[in-house]
Amino acid sequence: MRRSIATVCISGTLEEKLESIARARFDAVEIFENDLIYSRLSPREIRQRCADLGLGIDLYQPFRDMDGVDEARFKRNLDRAERKFDLMVELGAPMLLVCSNVQPGMICDDALLAAQMHAMAEKAAERGLRIAYEALAWGHHVNRYEHAWEIVRKADHPHLGLCLDSFHILSRGDDPAGIEQIPAEKLFFLQLADAPRMVMDVLQWSRHYRCFPGQGTFDLVGFMEHVLKAGYAGPLSLEVFNDIFRAAPNRRTTLDAFESLLFLEEQIRRRLESRIPTDPAARPLTERIELFNPPAPPEVRGVSFIEFAVDDASGKALGKALQALGFDHTGTHRTKSVQLFQQGDVRLMVNNEPGSFASDYFQRRGPSICALGLATDDGQRAVNRGVAFHVPSYAGRIGPNEALIPALRAVDDSIIYFVSQALEDKGFLATDFVMKDAKPAASRAGIERVDHIAQGYPFEQFDTGVLFNRVVLGLKPQESMELADPNGLVRSCAMVNADQSLRIALNVSHSRSTVSGRSTEALQGGGVHHIALSSSDIFASAEYLAKSGVGLLDVPDNYYDDLPARFDIDEALLKRMRRLGVLYDRNDEGAFFHFYTQMFVDRFFFEIVQRSDAYAGFGASNAPVRMSAQAVRAAG
Amino acid sequence: MRRSIATVCISGTLEEKLESIARARFDAVEIFENDLIYSRLSPREIRQRCADLGLGIDLYQPFRDMDGVDEARFKRNLDRAERKFDLMVELGAPMLLVCSNVQPGMICDDALLAAQMHAMAEKAAERGLRIAYEALAWGHHVNRYEHAWEIVRKADHPHLGLCLDSFHILSRGDDPAGIEQIPAEKLFFLQLADAPRMVMDVLQWSRHYRCFPGQGTFDLVGFMEHVLKAGYAGPLSLEVFNDIFRAAPNRRTTLDAFESLLFLEEQIRRRLESRIPTDPAARPLTERIELFNPPAPPEVRGVSFIEFAVDDASGKALGKALQALGFDHTGTHRTKSVQLFQQGDVRLMVNNEPGSFASDYFQRRGPSICALGLATDDGQRAVNRGVAFHVPSYAGRIGPNEALIPALRAVDDSIIYFVSQALEDKGFLATDFVMKDAKPAASRAGIERVDHIAQGYPFEQFDTGVLFNRVVLGLKPQESMELADPNGLVRSCAMVNADQSLRIALNVSHSRSTVSGRSTEALQGGGVHHIALSSSDIFASAEYLAKSGVGLLDVPDNYYDDLPARFDIDEALLKRMRRLGVLYDRNDEGAFFHFYTQMFVDRFFFEIVQRSDAYAGFGASNAPVRMSAQAVRAAG
Repeated sequence: MRRSIATVCISGTLEEKLESIARARFDAVEIFENDLIYSRLSPREIRQRCADLGLGIDLYQPFRDMDGVDEARFKRNLDRAERKFDLMVELGAPMLLVCSNVQPGMICDDALLAAQMHAMAEKAAERGLRIAYEALAWGHHVNRYEHAWEIVRKADHPHLGLCLDSFHILSRGDDPAGIEQIPAEKLFFLQLADAPRMVMDVLQWSRHYRCFPGQGTFDLVGFMEHVLKAGYAGPLSLEVFNDIFRAAPNRRTTLDAFESLLFLEEQIRRRLESRIPTDPAARPLTERIELFNPPAPPEVRGVSFIEFAVDDASGKALGKALQALGFDHTGTHRTKSVQLFQQGDVRLMVNNEPGSFASDYFQRRGPSICALGLATDDGQRAVNRGVAFHVPSYAGRIGPNEALIPALRAVDDSIIYFVSQALEDKGFLATDFVMKDAKPAASRAGIERVDHIAQGYPFEQFDTGVLFNRVVLGLKPQESMELADPNGLVRSCAMVNADQSLRIALNVSHSRSTVSGRSTEALQGGGVHHIALSSSDIFASAEYLAKSGVGLLDVPDNYYDDLPARFDIDEALLKRMRRLGVLYDRNDEGAFFHFYTQMFVDRFFFEIVQRSDAYAGFGASNAPVRMSAQAVRAAG
Repeated sequence: MRRSIATVCISGTLEEKLESIARARFDAVEIFENDLIYSRLSPREIRQRCADLGLGIDLYQPFRDMDGVDEARFKRNLDRAERKFDLMVELGAPMLLVCSNVQPGMICDDALLAAQMHAMAEKAAERGLRIAYEALAWGHHVNRYEHAWEIVRKADHPHLGLCLDSFHILSRGDDPAGIEQIPAEKLFFLQLADAPRMVMDVLQWSRHYRCFPGQGTFDLVGFMEHVLKAGYAGPLSLEVFNDIFRAAPNRRTTLDAFESLLFLEEQIRRRLESRIPTDPAARPLTERIELFNPPAPPEVRGVSFIEFAVDDASGKALGKALQALGFDHTGTHRTKSVQLFQQGDVRLMVNNEPGSFASDYFQRRGPSICALGLATDDGQRAVNRGVAFHVPSYAGRIGPNEALIPALRAVDDSIIYFVSQALEDKGFLATDFVMKDAKPAASRAGIERVDHIAQGYPFEQFDTGVLFNRVVLGLKPQESMELADPNGLVRSCAMVNADQSLRIALNVSHSRSTVSGRSTEALQGGGVHHIALSSSDIFASAEYLAKSGVGLLDVPDNYYDDLPARFDIDEALLKRMRRLGVLYDRNDEGAFFHFYTQMFVDRFFFEIVQRSDAYAGFGASNAPVRMSAQAVRAAG
C-alpha cells in the first residue's frame, strides 16, 4: 500500500521534514498548513522539492469550521476555500481535508451541512480537486464517522468523500465495523494514529499523546481489517501529534514512523491470512493488497551471553567483582583480549580488545554493557527481519575459524547478537574461547540464569525502544508504571516474550538526577543499567555474596518494620530478609525475593532475584526503596 | 498561623527534605509514609532530627482503605493501624491521616463506616493519638467533605475529626461554604494545594499537577475564609504532588512553598480586613488569627531602564546596533564604564565595568540583560516587601553622590531595581551619568516605550517565576499558552499589572532545541530573551530600521498569502506589511502589528510593536512564524 505521513508528526522546518520523510522511504506526505505557511518555499517550490525527493503530496490539511454556518459566514468560508484551492493547484495537492465544525454556535442541521459540503465539493471539482470530510472526536455536531458518512451520502457529490482517522474513531470507543458498509469509492483518505489509553479530555489527548501504530494500545489491526474489507485502497497515512516527537530529532522519529507502518502491514497480513480458512473474503484481499512481508520474528529463548566493554583497569575490577558474585573465569578468547565468566547458564564476556567495537564503546561510555547475545531459533532470519525493517545490521571483525554470529545495532547503539540453536549445539563458545575446563561452570552463588535486563533511555526515546523491542525481538509491552525516585519520576515499561524467557525493562525519566537519569547520562544516551540474575535459593546467594565481600545495597530497617503491615509474613522469614537485605513482593500469582549490589562505576549494577509460583512482575513496589538507597549513596 | 508542609511535596531523601524545610522556616511537617520507610533513620531518630531542626511533626500520612470493609478485613486493618500507632508514638506524631476508601468492592454503609472509624479512634485514643478522616475526590463512597463530616459526626469520638484538603474539595467544584457549619473542634487538619484548571481524570490531576497556592487557579482565599470562619486554628499545611517539583532541586521548591503560604496569608488578611465594614464576624477573626502582614505590593508604572552586561567587543557591537535601532547615545556614567542610550521613554544601559555585578554576569552568560529598573511609587517598600518574603536584596557598589536604587535578586539571578517616583523626579540619571545634551532624546525610529519583556526559564522554574512575579511585582498571570516551535512546544504565560504598564511573558520548554530553550541554555539558566518596544508608527519604524541596516527577521511570503484567509484585510495594507515584514493579529479588542530583529549573539532580540484600540495580547498566533524563521536562521 502507499505509505504516507503528515508533516505535522515530526520536528523541524518543512524542508528538513521532507528530507527525513524521503530518507525513511515514505511514498507521500500530507502537507500540514502551518508547515507551508511558515516555509520560505513557495507552494510551487514545495511541489518541486517533493518531486525531487520522490514524494507525492496526497493531502493538504486541515480546513476548519466549514459546515453548519449561516449564509454570510458560508460565503466567507467559500472565499477562504477558493484561496486554498488556488494554493493546492500550485502545490499539486489533489485533496483537501475538511474537519467537522467544533464551534458551539454552529447550526446543527444535517440537510444544511450536506448542502454546504456539496457546494464546496462543486467548487473543488471545478479545479479537479477533491474534499475529504472528517468527523473530529470533539466535533460539535458531527463527531462520529457514521454521522460524517451520513452527511457525505446526503451531499452526494463525486468530489466529496470521507477521511477516516483511527484516533477519532477508537478514542471514542466507536465500533469500526460499520466502516465495511461504506462504499469504497467514498473512502477518500485514511489517517492512522495509535495512543496510550488515557482518561482525559479527548482534544488534549489527541493533540499531545498520539503515537505511531504499535506504540499505543489501540486495536489498529482490527480497525484496518474493516477498512480493507470496505475496499479502501488509498494511502495509509500517519497523523500523530505528540509533544515528545515534536521536540525529538526528526530523523529518528521518521524512521520509527516508517517501521511502525511496516509492522502494522505485517500484522494486518497475518490477520488476513489467518482468516482465510473461515472467511471467503479474506483470500482475495490478501491477493489484491500488497502488504509488507518480512521474515518471521525470532523465537527468542533467553539470554545467551552479555558482553561488557572495559579497559584494563575496569576489566580487572569487573573480573574481581564477577568472581565475588560466584562466577568462574572459564575461558580466554583465542585471538582477542576477551575473558569469559560463567555461572549456571549465565555467560559474561569482558572485552578490552584494542580497536574493537567494545573498545570504541568504552571510549564513549566508560565501563558498560556493549552487547547482548540472545538465544534464538535462527539468528540469520532474525537479522534479516531487522534489516527488512531498516535496522542496521552489524558485522564485527572475526578471526579465522571463529564463530560468525549475525547481529543488529540496537537503539542505544549497542549490539544484539542472535545466537542460533545450531550455533549453540556446535558449542560456539569453545570455538572462540580456550576453555579452562571441559565441565560446565559451578553455580557457586546459586545463580542460574538471566532473569531480566533493565535499560535506561533518554526520555524522548521511550517509544522508539518500545517499537524496536516489539518489532525486532517480538516482545510485548506490559503496562507502563511510574516509579518514585527521590529525585523525580521514572517511567518503566517491562517487555516480555511469550514464554517469559526474555524480559527487558525500559526506564526513562525527564529528570537527569534520578538513578536512571544519571546512568543514562553517564552512558551517553542510555544502555543497560542493571542485570537481574535468578537464584535457586536467594538466601544462600545472599549469604555467599555477603561472605565474598560483594558490596550490597543497604535496605533501611523501616522497610522491614513496615512489611508486616503490607503482607502476612512469617517472623523467621522476615528476620532472615532483614539480616540479608532481601526485599519482598507478593501478588495473586506468587512471591518475589530480590536484592541489589551497589553500583559499578555509577553505570550498572546487579540484582539477584527468586520467583516463587507464577510471579511475573519485577518487584516494582520495591523500586523506590532501591532508588532511595542509591540516591543516599550517591549523595554520601 | 502554624506553617507546615508534607514531605512528599519536594525531592530528595527524608534527611535532605527536612533540612530544606527547616531552612525555609516552616514550623512543622507532615511525614509521608514512604519517606519514612525509605529512610535509614529510625522513627526515633527522625523525631530527634526534627526536634534539632525546630520542626514539629504534625501528621503522619496516609492510611488507606480502612473504612467500609468486612469484619475479617477490618480486623486486619486494625492490626495494621496498631503497627502505625506504635510507629507514631516512636515518631512523636500526634495525628494519623485516614483517606476514604477507594476500592470499588467496599461496603457502602454509612453506619458501618462510622462504627469502624469509631473503633479505630478508640484504639488511637489509647495511645493519645488522633485520627483525621479525609474524603478523597475519587473515594468510592465518601468523596465529598460533607459526607466525610457525616461519618465523623455519626462516629462521634473525641479522637476522630476531619482533614480538609483544598484540592479534593475545589477540584470537584464543591462549595466550601458548608465548612462553616462544622464545629471547629472537629476540624483536625487542613491541607492546601492549588492547581491549574484541567479536564482530566481527577486522580491523575491530583497526583501530577498540584501546585502551591498562587501558582494555580483555585480560589484558595475564598476557601480559607470559610475555614477560618468555622474557627479552625490548626496548621496550614501544604500537600502538593507535582512531577516537576519531584524532580527539581528541593531548596528552591521549599522556598517557593513558603513564599506561597505567606502570600496566601497576606491575601486572606486583606480579604478579612475588607470584610470588616460589612461583616461583624470579620474583625474578631483578624484580631485572633496571626496572618502574615508584609509591606504592600509596589505600584509599578512601567520600565524605567534596562541594563545589559557586555564586554568591550560586544558592548561596541550592541551600541552600534542600538544606534541603528534609532537610539541616541545620551550619556556616560560618571565613575563606571556604563553607557546610556535613549529613545522616547526607553533607557538602555550598556555596562562593561570590570569587577561589577554586570561583569560577573557577563562572565557566566555572555552578552545579556542583567538588570531591569522598574518605575514604582516607593522603591524601598518594594524591596522591603521582597525581603519579607525572603527574596534576597541586592546592594551594588556605588560611587560618592551616586543614586542608591533599592534592588532585589530575581529568580534568574538578575537584578530588579525599583526606581521610586521621588528618585525619578530628582533626575537620578543625571546624578549618575554625564549627559551629552540637556534635552530629551529624539525618537528617531518612532520608538516610545517598553511594551513587554519576554523571559526564558528552565522548564522546572515556570511556577517559581509565576509566583515571584505575582508576589514581588504584583503581576497577574494570564492563561498559559502552548506555542509550536519547529523543535518543540513552548509554554508561555503573560503576566501583567492592573494598568498594563508592566507586561512580562514567561516562556519555558522541555526541549533544549527550541529558540527559547537554546537561549535559556546560552544564558545558563534563563533570562530576558526579547524586549518588545512600542512604536507610534510601526511602518515608519520598519522603514527606519531597514534603512539603517538593522537585520530584521524574514517573514515568509506564504504568511502574507494566507493572511486574507484569516482576516478581512485591506490590499494596500497587506502589501505594505509584506514589503516590510510586519506581522498582524486582530481580536475583538483591536489589532496588533509587530516585527522582529534578528538575534543578538544567539541570546536576545528586539521586537517592535504597535497596538491599536484595546488590543491586550502579544500576537501569540504569530509566535510560531517567528520561531520557525529563527530556526531556519539557526540551521542555516
